Amino acid sequence: MPKPPLPPTLDAFLKSPNPCVIGSAQPDGSPHTAATWYLWEGGRALVNMDATRKRLEHMRSDPRVSLTVLGAETWYQQVTLIGRVAEFADDTDLEGIDRLSTHYMGQAYSGRDQQRVNAWIEVESWYAWNGGQYWDG
Amino acid sequence: MPKPPLPPTLDAFLKSPNPCVIGSAQPDGSPHTAATWYLWEGGRALVNMDATRKRLEHMRSDPRVSLTVLGAETWYQQVTLIGRVAEFADDTDLEGIDRLSTHYMGQAYSGRDQQRVNAWIEVESWYAWNGGQYWDG
Repeated sequence: MPKPPLPPTLDAFLKSPNPCVIGSAQPDGSPHTAATWYLWEGGRALVNMDATRKRLEHMRSDPRVSLTVLGAETWYQQVTLIGRVAEFADDTDLEGIDRLSTHYMGQAYSGRDQQRVNAWIEVESWYAWNGGQYWDG
Repeated sequence: MPKPPLPPTLDAFLKSPNPCVIGSAQPDGSPHTAATWYLWEGGRALVNMDATRKRLEHMRSDPRVSLTVLGAETWYQQVTLIGRVAEFADDTDLEGIDRLSTHYMGQAYSGRDQQRVNAWIEVESWYAWNGGQYWDG
């Protein structure tokens, strides 16, 4: 699989507020998937979780993740980012989730009483499809 | 997490041609995700892969999978199915991929010279969200 950086076309694609599913590993090694918001910035992906989310605990134990991003217009455009969480940081002022919420919903996040955590994902390899063909930008 | 069967509302949701991402485990235990077509029939999910796809090899080694299905209308409706591939079967006459292609594209699959494999997934647990709330039907 190709290594980063991604070609400009895919970099631009990832900057849109696209649907995304994140895969992580449970303690017994079984895969877990969940839909998620993400922000693509400087070649890294930011995701944000409620601090009580079990997936967060699992990702702290095993930071390896895989994100499949689907095109908002057509899900036959797909970019998958494989890597690991390089940094967990408490989102004490909700700045992270507010940025995500603004990106996707155009407004700050509605849940103001949650404890949340930012996770920055570094990409180690990627692949992409566009209408059934490899997509390399 | 709840066990099957799924409530009727979610069962009906899964029967639509929705975007879906499947998570599996690579041999080193790292998660892998990929967009996929699926068919929901009798409480099982059918997916179909090109026989040369590396993911197929990994799923034969470790059949545990997780599917996150996003609503075709809004991806804020999400159902995640966690389980394992109970059966792999060569799709020798392409009947499986043709059914999937017809479900999603309204016509038989265009690639007639591929060797393909059906994988039937049995669900062990599930969870669902609808607009940020738990979705239980």
